[in-house]
Formats: sequence, structure tokens, C-alpha cells
Amino acid sequence: MREKTFVLAPDSFKESMSAKEVCIAMEKGLRKVYPKAEYIHVPMADGGEGTVQSLVDASGGQIYIKEVMGPLGQPVTAKYGILGDGLTAAIEMASASGIHLVDKADRNPLITTTYGTGELIKECLDRGIRSIIIGIGGSATNDGGTGMAEALGARFLDETGNELPRGGGGLDRLASIDVASLDERLQHVQLIVACDVTNPLCGEQGASRVFGPQKGATPEMVLQLDDNLAHYAEIVNKQLDKDIRDLPGAGAAGGLGAGLLIFTQAVLQKGVEIVIEYTGLKHKLAAADMVFTGEGGIDFQTKFGKTPYGVARTAKAGGKKVIALAGYIGEGIETLYAEGIDAIFGIVPGAAELEKLLNDGPANVERTCENIARVLKLSE
Amino acid sequence: MREKTFVLAPDSFKESMSAKEVCIAMEKGLRKVYPKAEYIHVPMADGGEGTVQSLVDASGGQIYIKEVMGPLGQPVTAKYGILGDGLTAAIEMASASGIHLVDKADRNPLITTTYGTGELIKECLDRGIRSIIIGIGGSATNDGGTGMAEALGARFLDETGNELPRGGGGLDRLASIDVASLDERLQHVQLIVACDVTNPLCGEQGASRVFGPQKGATPEMVLQLDDNLAHYAEIVNKQLDKDIRDLPGAGAAGGLGAGLLIFTQAVLQKGVEIVIEYTGLKHKLAAADMVFTGEGGIDFQTKFGKTPYGVARTAKAGGKKVIALAGYIGEGIETLYAEGIDAIFGIVPGAAELEKLLNDGPANVERTCENIARVLKLSE
Repeated sequence: MREKTFVLAPDSFKESMSAKEVCIAMEKGLRKVYPKAEYIHVPMADGGEGTVQSLVDASGGQIYIKEVMGPLGQPVTAKYGILGDGLTAAIEMASASGIHLVDKADRNPLITTTYGTGELIKECLDRGIRSIIIGIGGSATNDGGTGMAEALGARFLDETGNELPRGGGGLDRLASIDVASLDERLQHVQLIVACDVTNPLCGEQGASRVFGPQKGATPEMVLQLDDNLAHYAEIVNKQLDKDIRDLPGAGAAGGLGAGLLIFTQAVLQKGVEIVIEYTGLKHKLAAADMVFTGEGGIDFQTKFGKTPYGVARTAKAGGKKVIALAGYIGEGIETLYAEGIDAIFGIVPGAAELEKLLNDGPANVERTCENIARVLKLSE
Repeated sequence: MREKTFVLAPDSFKESMSAKEVCIAMEKGLRKVYPKAEYIHVPMADGGEGTVQSLVDASGGQIYIKEVMGPLGQPVTAKYGILGDGLTAAIEMASASGIHLVDKADRNPLITTTYGTGELIKECLDRGIRSIIIGIGGSATNDGGTGMAEALGARFLDETGNELPRGGGGLDRLASIDVASLDERLQHVQLIVACDVTNPLCGEQGASRVFGPQKGATPEMVLQLDDNLAHYAEIVNKQLDKDIRDLPGAGAAGGLGAGLLIFTQAVLQKGVEIVIEYTGLKHKLAAADMVFTGEGGIDFQTKFGKTPYGVARTAKAGGKKVIALAGYIGEGIETLYAEGIDAIFGIVPGAAELEKLLNDGPANVERTCENIARVLKLSE
């Protein structure tokens, strides 16, 4: 019999294993039953946490660190990645401007800034990068991406020509935007923004109302921030001739979506689709007899753009069989069968402390994969 | 394609589902993928808790209750079963004389008695039963089965001809055993004793030393009880011409094993083998394309006579494929693959409270079976 080819394309299992570590555990289990099979590792992500790591792992790239300005102006050590091609970078905005960088008591979207994210983009320009993939989940900010633009040379001025303080709270005094010193290299670099939300910049579904509260905004702040972003959009429209206010995704990451659309050559795309493209998943699937995917949790939300869903859709388009693993199986997984996931297995061996389960992730993935392989073997 | 036949032969999942309930959940899951397959339910057990229920369920028999004497002389309501053939009964000694019937503070193997177990046997004789399957796990007693024999007419006398008090503590004064009134029907009824231990009646590996402490015996009591059982064996040997002292299994259930060998037509057999025989498993397996088994927990101990092991050995002898499910997967399951279990899956969907997992047992078995079936289907 011809030897099988397995493509292993899981997301990370949050707090337990990186996607690469999941691949390794999957192979260990499957190899016990199919020792001579070929195993192709494609560590995946969906634009959220772990995206830089997976893109770097999948492409044979490298992780770098850089000290940048955190959401409250404090220095933070941010990570970014350069993919194996040497021409593509990957950034997670949360690494520089994320909510996890601000203590709960200090959360205040009036003053938090995306400046550090702009510094990461500048670092990529300095390295001669041609494409930047940027994941924008988990932000602490509501500044419309003005901090990001400022780090790249834009100036946000009040009526007297003075620069505004950073953060979304001062944008009501925005009178003009000076882009004369905006980094020219931005014109020649594509930003591929991993964005799974369609929220506009302002209004009922806007950045401030929908995401403001989880960043520490009081109801009063929410109204203030929403008004400020509307004012900002008006100035942008008048002076830069860009009408981004109602574009889907402009409201992502406290309006960083809008900022990227205004000041850079940005395209917004679903996170998992970007990862599928940049990992070459479709190409790697061609040879597959079977595909294994997975994520920390799988439930009815998985089909709203999570990795196992994206992998399954891509695999099914090529007629491939897909098995998914999860540390936690929630409600509604039966809706996933029609989307191309042929079977779903939990990896948890029994009642246990969460900490032990997180620690034992690799062993549990390995055991589960071995047993799935044993069932596959039964029918050969 | 010919429709498949699945034989479903799980043990109970303790504190969660009876074996019959597991069968039902298994079928529900498999039927989603194989709606036209045939499903043969064979609720199993291994001689321990749940054996009566499974034998009754598997044979279409019935459960009865009877008030008998508990381990401390108190009345207890014991259950026993009559199998579908109407001629075979099933008893669990623990139902009449079990450790769970005695509060921890009151545990005292000097005085606990197997009298109630004898009453259950007598009840079966009164019903015209021809074979009695008796599970002897979980006893509170250390009386060498003297209580059991007394309920059936034997008398245990001291030097002055007075009856001894019940329990293992008074056997040092045993001078003679009067079997004149022992129920004659015992000569014509076979007792099939489910016994997985090989402990002799006395000595280092004897009933008192090995099992006494867990029944509440202090070190002093252990020595006393061991001496008493040795004296008992001597009197039996002298007066009844039966040398049971060193027979494997004589020490089971505080010497009830010995008592049954002395006073009844007993054969000792591994529990799961008895259940396999009386459920007709081997015959039912003949038509199977695949066998599903399982138990609350599966680990390295499974191969010491647990149900999944017994089912797998029987199935493998007929060349059948076996998949096992468990609520808890412990260490060393890989040793089971060579014993005929082709694959093992946990049913737990993720970290959760034990109580919720026990409650959700049927749904978790169903989901796991459905997904295993989906994998089987992939290879067709």
C-alpha cells in the first residue's frame, strides 16, 4: 500500500501548546500507527494570539523583539516575526498595544495609544520588508490608530497648531492632520490586516460602543470616544479625502482598522484566510490523504472564522478528509460536520485540574491521535 | 453495502450510567452515522458492583428485593436478580453484607456477619432456582462464611454445645459444626462464585491480613481473626473432611469464598468470564462487524480481569475489532492494544466539575461514538 501523507494544521491550544507543539504531538501519536507516513506540519492561527509564532514556524522564519511604547506610554518589549521569505513581516498589535499590558485598574481608553504598533511597523520598514501581516485583536486602545500614524510621522494638531495628547480622549480638539512627514515607504508596502469583525468606526456598532467597555470605558467615556472618532472621521474626510467612517472593519481595535486604511496601503482580510495563504496550506494539502486540525476549544463559534473551520473549508475544497482535536468541546459542534470537519475528538482523559490538563496537552494530543489512527487502520 | 452489526458490550460507568444506559447512548451516537445498522446490546459487568443489574438487563430478567440481616444484624433491603431463563439467579453479597452498609465508625470485622447473604441464597432455593451466580466483592465481613452457612441451617457450636455469636471474633471457641439441618437443596444447586482474587483463607496472603484492615480491623484484630480462621479451617478439615485452607480464593470476602466451598456446590470463576457466559456474549459476537466496550475507568489494571479486557479477549478470539470508551483514561493503556482493544477514547469533553461529567455521561458517550463512527465511515 502507498504510504499515507498527513497534513497537520492545528491552531495553538491556548495556555497549553503552540501550534507547532501540537503538530509535533500529533505526529508522535500518528507515527505509532503509521511509522512510514509523511507528516507535513502547518502550524496555523486565525489572526489572533499566536499568529506571529505560527507564521514564523510554518515558514521557517524568525522571531525578533523590539522595545516600543506601551498603551500607557510605558516601555514594553514587543515581539514580531519575519517569515522565511525574508520579505514578509508579521505583527500582533496586542504585543505593543494590547489590553494585557495594562493593569485592570489602569485601563482607560481615553489615553491609551497605538503608538507602539506604529513603531513596530516602522521597524519593519527599516528592515526592508515588503508586506506586513498585522493581527489587530486584543487592543487596549480607542485612538482610531492615530498613535500608530504618529509613530510613522503623521501629526495630529489642534486649532493652535499644537500636537494633541495621545489617546482617543483628545480627538475632539483635532483641527488638522499633517501628513507631510508621514513615512513615504508606507506607499510601497502592503499591510495585510487580519480582521474578522465588520464594525464601522462610529455609531451603535462602532468601536467605542461595542469594544470600549471591555477596555475600561465608562458609559460617559463611550459617548465621548464615539463623538471623538466621528469628529476624527470628518476631519480625515475633509482634509485627506478618505471616507472611512462606515467601512466594515474600520472600528476594529479601537479604530486602528480605520487608521491603517487611512495612513497605509492596507487591505482587511479574515485572519485565518491570511494564515492559510501565507503558510501555503492549500498547496501543502494537495498531497494529503488526511488532515488533522484542532484548537483549544471547539464549539458553535468555531465556524465564525476559527482555524479548524478555515482549514476544513480549504481541505474540503480539495476533497480532503479532516479530523479535529480540542481540549474543550462545547455546544453545537454538530453544525461543523457540514462545514468539512469529518470528526471531532476531545483530548482530555478524565476529570482533572485545569492546570494538569494544560500541562499534559502534548501527551493527550499524542494519545488521541494514536487512537484515531488505530481506528483508521481498522478499516484498511 | 451490507449493513453493519455493532455489538455494544460495556460495563457500567460507576456513579454515572448503568451498562444498559451506556449501550443506549452508544447506539444513539453510532446510529447517526449508521442508521440502518443492527445494534446488539450486551450490558456487561465483571462480578463487582452492577453485575446483577447487567445480567438481568442482558437476559431480560428481573430485579427483586428482600429484607435480610445486614452485617451488624440490622435489617437491610437487598436486591437480587432472576435471569431471563427463570432458572438462574444473581446475587451480590455486598447487597446484604457489604461494607457500604456499615458506617465507618461501626466497622468491626469481629462481629460482622454474612448471614444476610445466606438468606439471599435461601430465597433463591425457595424460588426453585438451579444456578446462583454470586458476586462476592465489597464485603464488610471476616467470618469465613459461617453466617451464610448458619442462615442455611448449619450450626457453629462451642465446647458446651452452645451456638457461637455471629462474626469472625468468636470462631476461636468453635468446637464443632452441626450440618444435620443444612438445607439439602444446596446439594442440587450450583453456585458460580465470581472471584478474581486468589488469596488463601489464612496467613500472609489470607483474608484477615490482606482485607481485614479495610474493613476496620486493627492490627490486633487482624492477628486474632487470622488465628480464628485457621482454627475454623482445622475443625472443618477434621469434621467435614474438607481441606479448604489453602485453596485459591478461599480468602475472598473475609473467607466467604471458603464458606461457599465448604457448604455449597460452589465453583470459583473470574467474574467477567461468568458474565460473558451468562450474557451469551460469545454467541452474540458472531454476527458483529465491530464491538464497542468501555468502563468508567481504563488503565493498566484493566487487564487484571476488568470488563473491557474480557470483552476484547473474547472478541479477538473471534477476529472482531474492539473499540473501548472510558470516562477516565489512566496510565498504561498501551498495554491493552496487544490484548485485543484496538482503540481507546475518553468521553470527557473538557475540564469540568466531576458531578457535571457524571451527569453528562450519556451525552458524552453518544458524541464520542458518533465521531468514532464518522472516522470509520471515512475509510469505507
